[in-house]
Amino acid sequence: MLLVQAPPGIPVLTRGDDVAAVIAPALATLAWPDGSVGLGAGDVVVISSKIVSKAEGRMIAARDREDAISSQTVREVARRERPDGSVLRIVENPLGLVMAAAGVDASNTPPGTVLLLPEDPDGSARRIRRGLAARFGVRPGVLLTDTSGRPWREGVADIAIGAAGVAVLEDLRGGVDSYGTRLTATVMASADELAAAAELVKGKAAGLPVAVVRGAARLVTDDDGPGARSLVRPPEEDMFRHGT
Amino acid sequence: MLLVQAPPGIPVLTRGDDVAAVIAPALATLAWPDGSVGLGAGDVVVISSKIVSKAEGRMIAARDREDAISSQTVREVARRERPDGSVLRIVENPLGLVMAAAGVDASNTPPGTVLLLPEDPDGSARRIRRGLAARFGVRPGVLLTDTSGRPWREGVADIAIGAAGVAVLEDLRGGVDSYGTRLTATVMASADELAAAAELVKGKAAGLPVAVVRGAARLVTDDDGPGARSLVRPPEEDMFRHGT
Repeated sequence: MLLVQAPPGIPVLTRGDDVAAVIAPALATLAWPDGSVGLGAGDVVVISSKIVSKAEGRMIAARDREDAISSQTVREVARRERPDGSVLRIVENPLGLVMAAAGVDASNTPPGTVLLLPEDPDGSARRIRRGLAARFGVRPGVLLTDTSGRPWREGVADIAIGAAGVAVLEDLRGGVDSYGTRLTATVMASADELAAAAELVKGKAAGLPVAVVRGAARLVTDDDGPGARSLVRPPEEDMFRHGT
Repeated sequence: MLLVQAPPGIPVLTRGDDVAAVIAPALATLAWPDGSVGLGAGDVVVISSKIVSKAEGRMIAARDREDAISSQTVREVARRERPDGSVLRIVENPLGLVMAAAGVDASNTPPGTVLLLPEDPDGSARRIRRGLAARFGVRPGVLLTDTSGRPWREGVADIAIGAAGVAVLEDLRGGVDSYGTRLTATVMASADELAAAAELVKGKAAGLPVAVVRGAARLVTDDDGPGARSLVRPPEEDMFRHGT
């Protein structure tokens, strides 16, 4: 069984905060159906990248937003003019993520400011993992997430943009299906599925920026692994590389 | 807390099977941490569309695969020649879904056959919902899922292609963030996030085609609703409409 819950009581983070130290007290209060409390071996801690950005001082003045988007743009993938004359740009950012406004976001930030994504989300995830391991005596998986649109589909969903100790891709190739036929093509984006599951309990309006997923220990690895960067498809395999 | 589990013991379905009738005995055995058993009010039953296709007789001979893909192609979105000379086509199918090979699939089917998607997955979901409601005395949400690739990202993830009684899009616009700022743009693709969460316990190799999600009752609606078809972005809002 997969269990997912988001602890209340995480304060607003500010520049210079140690993310693991700030979220640990709330994580320590998590109560599980088997009577255990806190973080356990094999748990995955899923953290909205927004609070990590705040701790890392990635807040800028809103008047600098367009400059920030430009500086975070490696490649423009699509653009559309809105009825009010403003332009929506879908771009690839330095992390290889294709996102609206390069991931520069104005929600859940103080009025007059916008937030950039963490500069190195995989590095942030590794650092937070070390901090949680030191406090809890277990090495959880850590994911940093952001909310992203998807071509051709309505609505947005959370994806993993940073990872430590999580098998972000679960390779089923070489396994067999229920007919004994070998699976040849299936690599699941497990980290994105974990991010999506966590979003269902975190929510944007609720002030619950962290969730813990229990029951996916098969995806938690001893070493930190290659991180969420390995979820970015290399350009030579990208069938949708229309931008310049 | 969100709880997700996949009951064992669902037999292989064949043409003419009543999906609700076949999966109900396994669902009835689900044991929950609070001591309850079976399906409860507010649960979402997430079903791999593959078993619905089988029940609906959507199996065809593998030699007819290319013809089937062509017949299921409304619009070609991208294509690439593989090293062996075969061609990978990403196309829009009659359901509005943009998928590799139009969603025509050869895994978890008897050797020599391939499966088409259900012809009307929202209709199938509504029918299964009625069947489960009649057996359990509660009206669960029902999702039919398939596995899909994503542009720019490695790996595949499950999405919702059929829905009944589930708010497939969760509109957070009008809510406020933790700073009191009104959320203006956020509509979550909740049905896709539920599909992703369910995939983490279902798996392809494990023979567990159904999962139940408990703890997302806010997304379960009394009426069947508009279905997963409403997750398909209308062409006029599609910024990635490069095909012909």
